[in-house]
This record gives sequence, C-alpha cells and structure tokens, in this order.
Amino acid sequence: MASIDSLRMLLVEELRDLYDAEQRLTDALPKLAEASNNSELVDAFNTHLVQTQQHVKTLEHAFADLGEDAKTHTCKGKKGLISEGDDRADEDYDEPDLRDAAIIGAAQRVEHYEIAAYGTAIAHARLLGLANVVRLLETTLADEKAADRTLTDIAERVVNKEALRPGPQADTHRTTM
Amino acid sequence: MASIDSLRMLLVEELRDLYDAEQRLTDALPKLAEASNNSELVDAFNTHLVQTQQHVKTLEHAFADLGEDAKTHTCKGKKGLISEGDDRADEDYDEPDLRDAAIIGAAQRVEHYEIAAYGTAIAHARLLGLANVVRLLETTLADEKAADRTLTDIAERVVNKEALRPGPQADTHRTTM
Repeated sequence: MASIDSLRMLLVEELRDLYDAEQRLTDALPKLAEASNNSELVDAFNTHLVQTQQHVKTLEHAFADLGEDAKTHTCKGKKGLISEGDDRADEDYDEPDLRDAAIIGAAQRVEHYEIAAYGTAIAHARLLGLANVVRLLETTLADEKAADRTLTDIAERVVNKEALRPGPQADTHRTTM
Repeated sequence: MASIDSLRMLLVEELRDLYDAEQRLTDALPKLAEASNNSELVDAFNTHLVQTQQHVKTLEHAFADLGEDAKTHTCKGKKGLISEGDDRADEDYDEPDLRDAAIIGAAQRVEHYEIAAYGTAIAHARLLGLANVVRLLETTLADEKAADRTLTDIAERVVNKEALRPGPQADTHRTTM
C-alpha cells in the first residue's frame, strides 16, 4: 500500500477496513441467527442483518462523498472476531440457552469493535470538516450501539437466567441446526 | 473441548479466552509504545502494560477462586485485533502523528474488545453468585475503560490535531524505530 500522507487518506483506509468488516458481518449474522435458540435473539440478529446491509450502502455513500473508490481492505480484527463467533456457535453445549449466552458474548465483542472503529473514523472525519461523512457514520454508530444494548437486554432478561438453570432442561439437547 | 454443560463452565472458558488475550496484549503493548511518537501516548501504553500484567495475575486469582487451572484458550478475536494493530504500526506514514492516530484507533478496538468480554464474564459471574470473581473482574474492567478514555483524550487533545496539519511537519519522516 502507498504511504499514508494525510489524515484524509488514513480516514479512507479506516473506511475500507469497515467496508470489509460490514461485508463479513452480513455473511456471519445469518449463521448466528441459525445457531441461536431464543426467538428474540434470532429476531435481533435478523434485524441487525438488515441494518448491516444498509451500513454497507452507507459506507458506499461516504466513499462517493469523498470521491474515492469503494474498495475493501482486509480487516484482520473483524476476521478474527467472526471466526471466534463461529467457533462459539460450533462448540458443543448441553443446553441451547448456554449456546445462546456464548453467542451473545461473541456478538457483543463484534459490536464493540465496530463502536470503537466508527468512533475513530468519526473523530477523524469531524477534524477534516467532512460534515456529510460524519452524519452518515453517526447514523451507523447509533445502530451499532442500539444493537449492543438489545443484546445486553436479551442476555440479562432471558438468556442468562435460562442458561443458569440446571433443572428441567438438563436433558434437552439441541436437535435442530 | 468437552461439551459445555453449565454457565459456570462457560464462564471458565470465557476467562481462559481473556487469559490468552491479556497475555497477547503484554507482548503487543511494548511494540505499540515503541512505534508511537507522542510522549503521552508512549506513557499511556507503558502504564497500560503494567496494568495488563496485573490483569493476568487478577485472572489467576479468579481461576484460583473457582478452583480451576489457569489455562489459556486461544483467543482468535484478540489475535486478529493485535495483528491488525501490528499492521497499522508497520505501514508507511509520511508523518509520525499519522502513525500515532492510526495506532490509537487500533488500540481502542482492543480496549473495546476487552470491555465487551469482561462485561459478559461479569454478568455470568454475577448470576452465579461469585461475588469475589465479580469484584476481581470489575477492577480490571475499570482499568480498561480508563485506558480507552485516556486514548480518546490523547487523540482529541493532541494527536489528531497534529495529524491534521499538513504544514511544517510535511517533511518530517520517522527516523527511529
């Protein structure tokens, strides 16, 4: 890659990382929804998939605004996080609620990754006076924060409590998937 | 790995992931400090290295409290994030402040990863009534949040503004490293 010669060029690289990350997430979310047992969790992943498809388009608008090609730059961080999420979903669990609790944990790491990455890109875009890019990225950041809160809510209200109970579900093994 | 049969076992796996992640970070932080130009940023990474060494010991206390071996479980998420941080530091930049801005972005993704991971582990430990483990992990979580705020502060107050200026430093190339 060419030498990074300006904050603007660094911002474009950050957006290319995010463009790769969001595309990887559109592949990963259906798998997480498929592996989840709790219906609220399945809904949350499906809703976030629609949002994530929009986030890909939002990044394309930002590239257009900057007059830059919408190219990806392999995002090793997100790649590792998604691979971790796949591993979590693929492990053996005696109860579906335990799998759900593990999947929520992995998904929240992905959301926090995005919250940090968009936060950095927004700070750089703001300094560069790119008001429209800031506005675009802030819309996505609000979605990521909301998705993280939804996962916390589902975990605290339902999944973790179910995962705690060793009782009646102790012999309920996951049969579908 | 054996089938995960309880929330307690899931917590132990989460702590083994974090144990791997924190150890990887003790290797990565000196490299980030070395690659940084701004003295406040160098200090921040060195301070966080001392904290991270303590976080490794804190996890060992948590394992002891749980009567479990302090083993690692390869943390692919953190591995990818750290590899991304290394790449950021190794890229070519026309100005040291641009490298600093990029490194801060990568480091904040790592901090957010840890914030999410400790948040999940604390929620699970709390449900299990493991007050001492909760207390230990909350001490570390407070450090991670503080480290993230310090990086935001350095970025906003100094580094990003310096990275924005194309003027006098335009011909200042990094010579040490």
